[in-house]
Amino acid sequence: MSNRYAYLGPEGTFTEAALRALKPDAPAAQFVPCNGVDMVFAAVRRGEATGGVVPLENSVEGGVSATTAELVNGDPLLITAEIAVAVEFTLFARRGTALPDVKRVATHSHALAQCRGWLAANLPDAEAHIVSSTAAAAQSVAEEPSSPYDAAICARIAGERYGLVPLAEGVGDRAEAATRFIYLSRPGTLPEPTGADRTSLVAFLPHDHPGALVELLTQFAVRDVNLTRLESRPTGDGLGTYCFFMDADGHVAEARVGEALMGLRRICKDVRFLGSYPRADAGLGHLRPAARISTTNDDFHEAEQWLARIRAGRVG
Amino acid sequence: MSNRYAYLGPEGTFTEAALRALKPDAPAAQFVPCNGVDMVFAAVRRGEATGGVVPLENSVEGGVSATTAELVNGDPLLITAEIAVAVEFTLFARRGTALPDVKRVATHSHALAQCRGWLAANLPDAEAHIVSSTAAAAQSVAEEPSSPYDAAICARIAGERYGLVPLAEGVGDRAEAATRFIYLSRPGTLPEPTGADRTSLVAFLPHDHPGALVELLTQFAVRDVNLTRLESRPTGDGLGTYCFFMDADGHVAEARVGEALMGLRRICKDVRFLGSYPRADAGLGHLRPAARISTTNDDFHEAEQWLARIRAGRVG
Amino acid sequence: MSNRYAYLGPEGTFTEAALRALKPDAPAAQFVPCNGVDMVFAAVRRGEATGGVVPLENSVEGGVSATTAELVNGDPLLITAEIAVAVEFTLFARRGTALPDVKRVATHSHALAQCRGWLAANLPDAEAHIVSSTAAAAQSVAEEPSSPYDAAICARIAGERYGLVPLAEGVGDRAEAATRFIYLSRPGTLPEPTGADRTSLVAFLPHDHPGALVELLTQFAVRDVNLTRLESRPTGDGLGTYCFFMDADGHVAEARVGEALMGLRRICKDVRFLGSYPRADAGLGHLRPAARISTTNDDFHEAEQWLARIRAGRVG
Amino acid sequence: MSNRYAYLGPEGTFTEAALRALKPDAPAAQFVPCNGVDMVFAAVRRGEATGGVVPLENSVEGGVSATTAELVNGDPLLITAEIAVAVEFTLFARRGTALPDVKRVATHSHALAQCRGWLAANLPDAEAHIVSSTAAAAQSVAEEPSSPYDAAICARIAGERYGLVPLAEGVGDRAEAATRFIYLSRPGTLPEPTGADRTSLVAFLPHDHPGALVELLTQFAVRDVNLTRLESRPTGDGLGTYCFFMDADGHVAEARVGEALMGLRRICKDVRFLGSYPRADAGLGHLRPAARISTTNDDFHEAEQWLARIRAGRVG
Repeated sequence: MSNRYAYLGPEGTFTEAALRALKPDAPAAQFVPCNGVDMVFAAVRRGEATGGVVPLENSVEGGVSATTAELVNGDPLLITAEIAVAVEFTLFARRGTALPDVKRVATHSHALAQCRGWLAANLPDAEAHIVSSTAAAAQSVAEEPSSPYDAAICARIAGERYGLVPLAEGVGDRAEAATRFIYLSRPGTLPEPTGADRTSLVAFLPHDHPGALVELLTQFAVRDVNLTRLESRPTGDGLGTYCFFMDADGHVAEARVGEALMGLRRICKDVRFLGSYPRADAGLGHLRPAARISTTNDDFHEAEQWLARIRAGRVG
Repeated sequence: MSNRYAYLGPEGTFTEAALRALKPDAPAAQFVPCNGVDMVFAAVRRGEATGGVVPLENSVEGGVSATTAELVNGDPLLITAEIAVAVEFTLFARRGTALPDVKRVATHSHALAQCRGWLAANLPDAEAHIVSSTAAAAQSVAEEPSSPYDAAICARIAGERYGLVPLAEGVGDRAEAATRFIYLSRPGTLPEPTGADRTSLVAFLPHDHPGALVELLTQFAVRDVNLTRLESRPTGDGLGTYCFFMDADGHVAEARVGEALMGLRRICKDVRFLGSYPRADAGLGHLRPAARISTTNDDFHEAEQWLARIRAGRVG
Repeated sequence: MSNRYAYLGPEGTFTEAALRALKPDAPAAQFVPCNGVDMVFAAVRRGEATGGVVPLENSVEGGVSATTAELVNGDPLLITAEIAVAVEFTLFARRGTALPDVKRVATHSHALAQCRGWLAANLPDAEAHIVSSTAAAAQSVAEEPSSPYDAAICARIAGERYGLVPLAEGVGDRAEAATRFIYLSRPGTLPEPTGADRTSLVAFLPHDHPGALVELLTQFAVRDVNLTRLESRPTGDGLGTYCFFMDADGHVAEARVGEALMGLRRICKDVRFLGSYPRADAGLGHLRPAARISTTNDDFHEAEQWLARIRAGRVG
Repeated sequence: MSNRYAYLGPEGTFTEAALRALKPDAPAAQFVPCNGVDMVFAAVRRGEATGGVVPLENSVEGGVSATTAELVNGDPLLITAEIAVAVEFTLFARRGTALPDVKRVATHSHALAQCRGWLAANLPDAEAHIVSSTAAAAQSVAEEPSSPYDAAICARIAGERYGLVPLAEGVGDRAEAATRFIYLSRPGTLPEPTGADRTSLVAFLPHDHPGALVELLTQFAVRDVNLTRLESRPTGDGLGTYCFFMDADGHVAEARVGEALMGLRRICKDVRFLGSYPRADAGLGHLRPAARISTTNDDFHEAEQWLARIRAGRVG
């Protein structure tokens, strides 16, 4: 059986764009839109898909909370890749529609929030209508003979998919918006370290006391491992218990990351490892020099050899 | 002019339920549904509404990212109250519809994700359709003469608003789900300390280095101030710069909180204070004993007096 | 060749008493008094002695600074045992002398400081004379036919060694005074872990900045290793560079101590390991429950196995 | 009554040299040698002396432990000045003695340890004899008609005082040796801040647990206050309780130091303030740039004003 890739649908979402960028050579037939983030996870878990793509951060389509919930509470999957996709909103309409004709615009609520400035300046009299996704907006404009909408704000891929034509590009109010997507695989081999990796995990705090979080972060700081994302979430197990969703620089195969994770494991109620994978810094990521001299694998190795010497009574 | 309260609409959302719980005596005419979280903020900022309610955490309606974005980047508003509302999903239909008749169910994508288990067990053959909100689902089932849907999963308030009847209650897969809503006011007087308060703020890190977050959190830990929520967000100003959205126990009028915030202010590029307000622990919050003996206002006062003595050369 | 043990002399010091307690079965001929702490170190380094005993902490004989200096800067020796000796001062005189006859008392300056209260109450008219050690005081009273002194404040061992008789016991003002002595060996096999051990080391800070010391101590705290002694010392290499002399609970063979030392090694300019040896808690030490559950060797082993699993892509 | 200054005698010690450097204009009659560090403290406490000078750190004369003990446990005095004196050892003899004549050298044990290298190279056949102080060595060589010693290693001031002539200068093995002396006053007005001050204090830990010391030091680090000396000491109250003798950069009148001390006060069992006084960096001290931008008095003041604004509900 050929590979199949699940993604958060419908067709034409930014998520599909992310998947196509991750698997540029795959034929369209291998891409399977799913009706919800949870369905993408389910398809990968059951083996119905080789892998799956969902938004993780700053999405215009929603789905972020659902993604985190699945990563934290569902049967474990591994994140084995990530990609950041620039969020560029385009106003699409049926062929023949001119800008002044647009009286009713359909889009997703998050997209609407990001395009209000442009709409106020360029279509001050148009009504905005919220539908379930930007792709659904495009579909609605295109397919219905008597569509209630004149135009859709959506991704380029959606407009093209449904045979619409662009009326205006870059209608988002913030040029640099991006969404980070992750690629999910069943547990198995991790991606090789590349020297610019990210490690994701969830830490369940042992109990709630001032400083507990500092203790947890100190496990990273003391090994000079940088955290790039940190988000607390109620665990749902009664009141006042939290877990922390974290992204750290580095690969679990590196000594400094491995030791930090072991430290976390010892002090936490539980730690769920979510994956180590190459960092996508184009969109949301960040640039940072290589690990400081004291935390390279060589440094850890040198320190281990020194420890072996002093344990053997050799002080030199 | 009488008071007016803006909220994330349409009518019948969980947000409206939260607003009604916060303002139980206000007549319905004072509640103004808005077409997006950003519109609620705008209404309060412009003085068109006395206050506004939006979801902040764990919402089934979306809107959380938008809320945080407005709090972090928009013109400042103060959070002056919060409330946690239990998220209870009900399956509503037009009068006369029986459960076996339900072939097409409408709801919001997040609600769908939280009800899949019940649907699989009780309506295994029904199709699920995603619409723009749970309230829109109810409206769609009720108002259209030829509605494409047989039933809606939504809040009780929505089903009742649109004249539907409940077919099944508690159709969510997690009984304890809740959403935290905040009440927004224009800058002015803060709520009085109650002894069980929360303080929200956004801290902009000076630069990205391992341990910067630990330094920031240490400002709280060193004064024994507990953090109950922490979420990193890209600031959007180029790559690799983050801000942290935080909730802490205590009121800014308390010495320990005040000193922690001053410490934060000194080491951060910027700190945005979002408000101190009574804690709503019924739903998402957490219970915690009073501040430890060393961090009461009396302790700070005693230490100040001691400092004055030693500064005057009296060592006793 | 039989064993020989060097100690800080002259004969009759508290140091000799410590050595006798450490080597109760050795004949007197094996004990070699040295004229200075540095001479004890030299004798062991050159192999002229099997081991040596010097005071480390709270000594009444001086020598503490000299001991630390040799440990920090001299050719490395290992501490392989420690002992705490109660410092009990006795007033000794020649046979036939009665208390009222005592007009001139000889002792070491530190001993004098610890006995002033008793002298003021019991020999208010006697002159105190400072000599180079308490043992030298006893010798001076005993050996010189025309001794300038009537009595000596010294250790019991010194009074007996020089044939004097005790006039008054317990003449120190603080009953609980004790001195901690260490036993030095040439580098070689470390003592086996006993479950109640101490590890001594010197850490050279990389550079002088606020928080550098906190970073250093965090390497211990993060592995739950307790420090029982900490002392900063100028290194002598220019201004403003310090090293830290530390005692920690635990044995370098333990995982938590080993990892802490490796962490130290990575962030410090240099770390000198001084030894792991059974703790002498009778005198100066302290009692502490066993390591917390999260830092036993088993905990470290479990965490290592978990790391191996997740590195292999097994998330369970 | 004219001023009187007590110091650790006998005449000719490095301590006398320190006192003369601190009070260059005082006539010799005002300098009162004391027979022990404790006697200096007693003279100042009873008002018999205006002030007193004792060694605090790295002394060749001993007395350091005794100084710390008095500062920690005795009736409180304030440190109001400090000075670092270079320790330069000179070989002195009676007029007419040539270097080859020297067969017996007297000195203090600490001085001997610091001059062994020179003695081995230049007087390999001479015997070294330990006496109670370097000044006593000089006195012994000079005054006794039938002195048992040919030469003394001592301070220049001692050799000159007793009419001896220098045979060799700089006979210490480490050129940069120095001793730090402190000037003691009765409680009263503190010295004015100079911009380059030091603050000394003793902190009594609340209880012995891993990390307690880190918590304590964090009170300084979080306000960017640099520690320049740290020394643990058993308190003498049973086993396992420690106090910490600390020197910090800055003056208690500065906001950052004041706030750090208040923080310490709140978390410690007790804090004893020992004084704020101009830093003597010539000998042992260290150079450090001014406080970081975020911890000047202006920074603290700005943060206080910001806090007042946000407490008043003004978010701007």
